[in-house]
Amino acid sequence: MPRFKLTIEYDGGPFVGWQRQENGRSVQQAIEEAVAAFSGETIVLKGAGRTDSGVHALGQVAHFDLTRERTPDVVRDATNANLRPQPITILAAEEVGADFDARFSARRRHYLYRILERRAPPALDRGRVWWVAQPLDVDVMHAAAQALVGQHDFTTFRSSQCQAKSPVKTLDRLDVSREGDEVVVRAIARSFLHNQVRSMVGTLKKVGDGSWPVAAAGDALAARDRARSGPVAPPDGLYLVAVDY
Amino acid sequence: MPRFKLTIEYDGGPFVGWQRQENGRSVQQAIEEAVAAFSGETIVLKGAGRTDSGVHALGQVAHFDLTRERTPDVVRDATNANLRPQPITILAAEEVGADFDARFSARRRHYLYRILERRAPPALDRGRVWWVAQPLDVDVMHAAAQALVGQHDFTTFRSSQCQAKSPVKTLDRLDVSREGDEVVVRAIARSFLHNQVRSMVGTLKKVGDGSWPVAAAGDALAARDRARSGPVAPPDGLYLVAVDY
Repeated sequence: MPRFKLTIEYDGGPFVGWQRQENGRSVQQAIEEAVAAFSGETIVLKGAGRTDSGVHALGQVAHFDLTRERTPDVVRDATNANLRPQPITILAAEEVGADFDARFSARRRHYLYRILERRAPPALDRGRVWWVAQPLDVDVMHAAAQALVGQHDFTTFRSSQCQAKSPVKTLDRLDVSREGDEVVVRAIARSFLHNQVRSMVGTLKKVGDGSWPVAAAGDALAARDRARSGPVAPPDGLYLVAVDY
Repeated sequence: MPRFKLTIEYDGGPFVGWQRQENGRSVQQAIEEAVAAFSGETIVLKGAGRTDSGVHALGQVAHFDLTRERTPDVVRDATNANLRPQPITILAAEEVGADFDARFSARRRHYLYRILERRAPPALDRGRVWWVAQPLDVDVMHAAAQALVGQHDFTTFRSSQCQAKSPVKTLDRLDVSREGDEVVVRAIARSFLHNQVRSMVGTLKKVGDGSWPVAAAGDALAARDRARSGPVAPPDGLYLVAVDY
C-alpha cells in the first residue's frame, strides 16, 4: 500500500479553503477527485496546514495512500492533468514510508504575508496581497514583532473557532521587511493556531500605521485576550510557503 | 486645457488589448469611461504601447486632455474609483505640457517576458507566464539574443498586421536570465514592431530547448523572412514595464 507525499501550489481565491466543507469546493476535494479520476481509487488526502478560504499555497504538503503501485511521476502528471483548469498544481510527488504523516510529522511551517503599501489599488496582484494605502513603518513593525517570538500563550491571536488543545505555541521567527512597494511578513513555527498569522499581521499593521505604539503587540500578547488583537488581516495576502519534515 | 500623463498597471487577460476595438472591451475604453464618469468630459486617451490582448502592463503610459482644471491626485484617485472592479489601476497621474505625447515623446520602452520553466503547470501565475515544461539553456538563449541587438531590419520578427512604416528598429538590449524557476527576457528599444518581442522570445525558446542552434536567431534575422521566426510566444508572459521620456 504505497503512500505519496505531494507538494502543492494553489490560488486559494476560488475555494472554501483547504478542508472539505459542506458549503463549497475545497482544495482537498479537488485533489481527491483528480487522484480518483486517474487511479480509480477513492482516497483521503491529509494536509499539513488547513488554510482558510482565500489563503494561497506555494508549498502545501499532503499525503494519501493508494492500493496499487504507481510511479511518483505518474501521480504528479496524472493528478495535474485532472486538476485542470482549477488553479491547483502538484509541484512534486514522492513515495514515502507508512510512518510519514503530512500533518503530524511536520517540524516547521513557513508562512508569508504580503502587504501592498501604495496609493493605487492592485491590478495584477488583486486577491494576492492586502492593499494598505497608508504609509507603514517597517522598522517599527519588525521591532514590535520580536515581542511575539518564542514560546507564549497566543490566546490573543487565536480564532474563536480554533480547535487546538493548547494556546501555547513556539514562534521561531516573525520578520517584517520591505520589498519594493510591499511590506512582507515571514512567520516560522512548528505549528500555528487558527488565524494566528493573520491576527499577528493585523496587529503589526496597527503599529506600522502609527495607530498603536510599538509595545502594543507584546502588551496584547501578555493580556491573553482576543479583544486586544488588531483586526484579522484579509486572507488574500497569506501564503503557506513550505513545510519542513 | 490641462494635459495629464498617466502611469498604468493592468492585467491584460480580460481585455481585447490596449486599443479600442469593435470586438470587445479594451483597456483604453475602460480608462476613457472611468475619466468620463468623474469629470463629465469625453476624452481620448493615447497610449505609449498598443499592447495585444492578454499582454500586461506594470507601467504603461498614456495622456489625455481635460477642459477643466483638476489636481493630479483627484485624477488618479477618481479614475481608480471608477475603474473598479476592473483589473486596471492608475499608479500615478501628473500634469504635463501640451507638447507631451505619450506615444511620440517616448525615448525608450522596456518589456519583460516571463517563462515558467518547470514540469508542473502554473497555479498562482496562470495567465501571467508562458509555461514551458522542457529544460531551457539560459546561457545559450542569452548568447543567441545578442545577435539581435543593434539596428536591424526586423522583418523576420514582425507581424503581418504590423502598421509601422519601416521594419528597421534599434534594439538596445535583449537580456535572458534565470530567476528561480523562471527564465526572464528583458527587451529595451525606442520602439518595437508589432509582435516583435513575442516573436524574438519564441525564437530564443527554440534555441534554449535545443531544437535550433545558437546561430539560428541571427540567421533568421538576416533572412528577413517571417517564416524563419520561431512561433510567436503567447501574450500571457509579456509585460510593458516602463516607458522613458
